[in-house]
Amino acid sequence: MQVEIITIGDEILIGQIVDTNSAFIGQLLNLNGMSVKQISSVSDDREHILKALDEAKNRADIILITGGLGPTKDDITKKTLCEYFKTTMRFDEGAYQDVVNIFATFGKEVTPLNRLQAEVPSICEVVHNYNGTAPCMWFDVEGKIFVSMPGVPYEMKALMKDQIIPKLKQRFNFPFIYHKTVLTQGIGESTLSELISDWEDSLAALNIKLAYLPSPGMVRLRLSAKGEVEADLKIYVDKKIEELKLLISEYIYGYEIFGEEKETLEEIVGKLLRTKKKTISTAESCTGGYISHLLTRVAGSSDYYIGSVISYAYEIKETELGVPHDIILNHGAVSQPVVEQMAIAIRKKYKTDYSISASGIAGPGGGTDDKPVGTVWVAIATPEKVISEKFLFGNNRERNIQKTANAALNMLRKELE
Amino acid sequence: MQVEIITIGDEILIGQIVDTNSAFIGQLLNLNGMSVKQISSVSDDREHILKALDEAKNRADIILITGGLGPTKDDITKKTLCEYFKTTMRFDEGAYQDVVNIFATFGKEVTPLNRLQAEVPSICEVVHNYNGTAPCMWFDVEGKIFVSMPGVPYEMKALMKDQIIPKLKQRFNFPFIYHKTVLTQGIGESTLSELISDWEDSLAALNIKLAYLPSPGMVRLRLSAKGEVEADLKIYVDKKIEELKLLISEYIYGYEIFGEEKETLEEIVGKLLRTKKKTISTAESCTGGYISHLLTRVAGSSDYYIGSVISYAYEIKETELGVPHDIILNHGAVSQPVVEQMAIAIRKKYKTDYSISASGIAGPGGGTDDKPVGTVWVAIATPEKVISEKFLFGNNRERNIQKTANAALNMLRKELE
Repeated sequence: MQVEIITIGDEILIGQIVDTNSAFIGQLLNLNGMSVKQISSVSDDREHILKALDEAKNRADIILITGGLGPTKDDITKKTLCEYFKTTMRFDEGAYQDVVNIFATFGKEVTPLNRLQAEVPSICEVVHNYNGTAPCMWFDVEGKIFVSMPGVPYEMKALMKDQIIPKLKQRFNFPFIYHKTVLTQGIGESTLSELISDWEDSLAALNIKLAYLPSPGMVRLRLSAKGEVEADLKIYVDKKIEELKLLISEYIYGYEIFGEEKETLEEIVGKLLRTKKKTISTAESCTGGYISHLLTRVAGSSDYYIGSVISYAYEIKETELGVPHDIILNHGAVSQPVVEQMAIAIRKKYKTDYSISASGIAGPGGGTDDKPVGTVWVAIATPEKVISEKFLFGNNRERNIQKTANAALNMLRKELE
Repeated sequence: MQVEIITIGDEILIGQIVDTNSAFIGQLLNLNGMSVKQISSVSDDREHILKALDEAKNRADIILITGGLGPTKDDITKKTLCEYFKTTMRFDEGAYQDVVNIFATFGKEVTPLNRLQAEVPSICEVVHNYNGTAPCMWFDVEGKIFVSMPGVPYEMKALMKDQIIPKLKQRFNFPFIYHKTVLTQGIGESTLSELISDWEDSLAALNIKLAYLPSPGMVRLRLSAKGEVEADLKIYVDKKIEELKLLISEYIYGYEIFGEEKETLEEIVGKLLRTKKKTISTAESCTGGYISHLLTRVAGSSDYYIGSVISYAYEIKETELGVPHDIILNHGAVSQPVVEQMAIAIRKKYKTDYSISASGIAGPGGGTDDKPVGTVWVAIATPEKVISEKFLFGNNRERNIQKTANAALNMLRKELE
């Protein structure tokens, strides 16, 4: 089954935004057994869109279109689809209700301009967009499917995952695919690859494909099996994962099953804290609130997360976390005694069961020969003890912050488990 | 002058990598007065590449191709170009010298496989690639230019900037383009569009195009002018922006000039604080450290950012920020007196010039009829006063956190300016 993606909008062509939508769609389709034949990015131009639709139709069975559906004047996708399918506009009550609902959550009335968003080409079926005011339109014409979606990534992603993929699966027959991803933290891609090399070679016999998906401080290993018997796929993949655990169990912090809820490290930590009825606080320096942000972006985190002190300046480490002036003077703010004191102090002050602290040199400035940029100390205080660890990350500020947070959460996870 | 970009390789189609090359090329071309008509990503497939070349040639004068030039893979770009131009391969001494030089820097001899990289279609001119072993090929056929470049971003970028753009400028005459983007915060796309509708209509007379670029809590308005006289373009755009300011000045927080450094809201705030030699602290509840994270992800933020208290639990609001128990009881934690007290307390405690506080219901739980999910109070304390504002955002937790942070930073910016 061949698919084409058409993205509409000048912002991609002039390079103002990078087209991450197509990569998301490509990945999602691939995971569901469909291949993308071509991705075309075209301008907000009637003739050009018509041409692109025609060309895509000649190559593919499914044409997924994103962008150009805003309420403003530069968005002409809808009008052009009307022309392409030689149909007229109709007012769609369901689409209008979506617009009303979105506006209601903001306590606002629908404007005349936004009322127009409920107008769609007559022959399309409206797929509900619960996250925005632009309608998603499904056209089933001469055996080919055209879907027009908004370009806003989080609207498009929800539509693709929750509605378009299931609808496509209903409409066409695909082979079964089963993906399970092993989440690892604390081991680099190349070291990992050497460690599991023989195991990796053994996957081919079961027709399982492996993909390395690295992100700062983590590598996700995705196993994908494709076949006609759904139940077999799961058995094969799980068998291989059991073998993998014998090799790298200490680095594995969780699993993701494709199509099921994904779990981030902060969600796994949150679940452990909730189950054990334990609470957490953080005392952060170089991460500047990022660990706290990760913990609190999980819904319901107020059950276990109490609060934090972000002690960026030396004085705050001293006055709020009782780090003795001498220790900072003698050991520096990025040192084992400082992070250990930070963790002990915040745990006591905020009366939590556990605490995390971090102090490091995120960069680009502040590095020395002794402590280059990327040097980080992390500590965890538990009801029984304090543990701390030194890391040496790279020289990218944003990634150092992310890696520190992930390393800290993983240290906490190990203590909780 | 119309340009098309063709990227060759399955890794983009299956979403394994995001196509950042095309955005880079698009930006660079645009900056130099060329517009990209279409970007097509196609597979490593002979027939498909031939078709894409034909289609691109019909629409554009310049066709830039990246990818499919590696030494080992099923990289068939070169062979396919040979077929497309009905020519044969020749061995290029200059291209071979590039390969030899690259291998020499690694202290290695050229392998037979890599020697093949110096073979190119006879009719092309080889453009030297100083950063890799794949040749860059320039075809000038029937008045149209085709350039085939390696897909490795840093090789492609150097080639485009240092060689291809100058060569194209020598070969064709381009009009000038000038873009300036107005950054707004606190007003939705459709409300904005209605407010500036007449102004928008007036742009056509000066041949200026407008694009709306929305992201959570913000809308960027990009004005683009094209013409023969470079100086005029800037004058026209700036004139129109002056008119726009009369309509929406309170929502504008900055500008981006295309090709110059981009600035985020936290960078703008950081610059203001640094220039004025002022310091900042935050007391966060619903944002859980996100405002602090935004402030500290800016390099050098330790010059003005002192620290924060993340008071997620009621008790921390009381013990650490002195919010009276009665006020929380009578008004709730999401209320004007609570955020104002939080801002006043952290400013005093951390001895900063300014402070930000936020308390809200990020969701999905915790909403009431009175205070639905998305209700947020933000306060700013300055050396002179405390100001506070209530917001009603949507029902998405992550976006509520982002929107609150952006709104808070924008309130601070207004106070600083």
